[in-house]
Amino acid sequence: MSLAEFALIDRIRARSKGRDDVVLGIGDDAALLQPLAGHWLAVTADTLNSGVHFPPETLPADIGWKTLAVNLSDLAAMGATPSWGTLALSLPEASAAWIDAFADGFFALADAHDWRLIGGDTTRGPLSLSVTAFGQVPHGQALRRDGAQVGDDIWVSGTLGDAAGALQLWQRGEMDVTCGAGDADREYLRQRLLRPTPRVDLGMALRGVATAAVDVSDGLLADLGHIARRSGVSAMLAEENVPVSRELRSVRGSADALLHAVEGGDDYELCFTSNPSMRAHIQSLSNRTGLRLSRIGYIRKGEGVHCGGKDLQGGYQHFT
Amino acid sequence: MSLAEFALIDRIRARSKGRDDVVLGIGDDAALLQPLAGHWLAVTADTLNSGVHFPPETLPADIGWKTLAVNLSDLAAMGATPSWGTLALSLPEASAAWIDAFADGFFALADAHDWRLIGGDTTRGPLSLSVTAFGQVPHGQALRRDGAQVGDDIWVSGTLGDAAGALQLWQRGEMDVTCGAGDADREYLRQRLLRPTPRVDLGMALRGVATAAVDVSDGLLADLGHIARRSGVSAMLAEENVPVSRELRSVRGSADALLHAVEGGDDYELCFTSNPSMRAHIQSLSNRTGLRLSRIGYIRKGEGVHCGGKDLQGGYQHFT
Repeated sequence: MSLAEFALIDRIRARSKGRDDVVLGIGDDAALLQPLAGHWLAVTADTLNSGVHFPPETLPADIGWKTLAVNLSDLAAMGATPSWGTLALSLPEASAAWIDAFADGFFALADAHDWRLIGGDTTRGPLSLSVTAFGQVPHGQALRRDGAQVGDDIWVSGTLGDAAGALQLWQRGEMDVTCGAGDADREYLRQRLLRPTPRVDLGMALRGVATAAVDVSDGLLADLGHIARRSGVSAMLAEENVPVSRELRSVRGSADALLHAVEGGDDYELCFTSNPSMRAHIQSLSNRTGLRLSRIGYIRKGEGVHCGGKDLQGGYQHFT
Repeated sequence: MSLAEFALIDRIRARSKGRDDVVLGIGDDAALLQPLAGHWLAVTADTLNSGVHFPPETLPADIGWKTLAVNLSDLAAMGATPSWGTLALSLPEASAAWIDAFADGFFALADAHDWRLIGGDTTRGPLSLSVTAFGQVPHGQALRRDGAQVGDDIWVSGTLGDAAGALQLWQRGEMDVTCGAGDADREYLRQRLLRPTPRVDLGMALRGVATAAVDVSDGLLADLGHIARRSGVSAMLAEENVPVSRELRSVRGSADALLHAVEGGDDYELCFTSNPSMRAHIQSLSNRTGLRLSRIGYIRKGEGVHCGGKDLQGGYQHFT
């Protein structure tokens, strides 16, 4: 570790707040944490590489936000309460200004969820960010992928396809990710790509309600496919009920908007299954939180994801 | 995530064994773990980049071993029992042969310590490996850096400088890290560089014995400096008692060997402090385990690391 790396770590450490269950934070060989009794630890790890998972020119504050958001989204999909985590940061050059801007985005989201950075590593290399995030969930209440039951409804939060729509605009040179789009609809899509909202509160509220859950990171068809495969069931999708934002439809047209919504990734909404007896409860949850929850299909015997009679399971290719 | 990445993850998942406290392993949005009651979680994260932390031509099995070894060494320095962890792997190309060889080294060490891989991520990019490792330690028994007391002895395990000696031979073009060195002394040094032994059993045995501990990764002066600074004390080093292997002395001569031993990193031995009343206990520990433990100095009031009257605290620069 070079002296410059020590200095960078100090800048990050200065932004990390305390928490009662952090016995010892950054600065020793390891951090010491006090897990909750009666809970499981939920642990996820996701890496973002420049040029692969975000446009290379993305502003450091937006990278910071998204780096943590994709990991909190995985915890949300388990129904876990975010707790702590580590960050491995590879940077081409030791820049205090870059680190400070990155930390602005990263800790804005961390602090909002009382999530604490308790360790990590800074190395020189191509820009890459790996987070390992820990959450906690009461025994037996985690939302797994393998619990979907025949007859369950399929639900999804928010709207889908916005991030993929923005990404396509960027790929065509029609969107600058580093400054506001002017046009309000495009700006909405840009924010959905750069600053996804992990559905942490929804995930916790779905304990005891959802039978299975996944976050929509690879695309609805792909991620619903994970639930179907792991649960040993088939998912019937009602394409016409898949929620698409007015903004996406306005910018991309209805047909492309729907394609983005079923195939595009990076929205970080939650897709979950639940017994039809839960419909009123889920509707009230939506009313209470102001977050749209759409019933988009149902689970039946069989395998794969089907839509309007077509088997889509083998047909999709992931974006990215 | 591309289909090729799914295939790579499957190859790694196939090597991951179960453990009673792993409620749910790789394959969902997050893993679920059952922590031990009455214990703290110890969490550490270390990244190795090709060309920075190991020679680019290093064989994948050796990279796999070292990737985990440096993290288990941090857990050892906390007195923690290794439990689980995640791996973020960035690879230039999706090669099943590379992954299999990497896994040979990685899981040889993981299985030896009953440590389980429970999550991670594979991305395309320059070769880089980030592990976040969790261990567990009974409440109040962790070995921290800030507990050294005036009057304590300073101890170190094994011998120091071997890895730095090997690295210098490699830098001069006098050692091929990919095949046996022929000469037994050089081969010993090569193995010390490529396959360091994390002192996990020693760390656990030092609970209630050591007042402070650190692993020697940045070099004895640097790491002992961490203990001195965090504990608010001064470390007096008896240079002549720093343990140097016969092999290092034979290959590099006595003067250079000692320089490597006090300044060189990457040995992953434990340096610890303890009350003089523990000397007989520590000696019996050494006898029982067959691991050399050397008393190399003592703690007094003040600050910095001193040696033969010289203040070495401000003078060192890290290797790497």
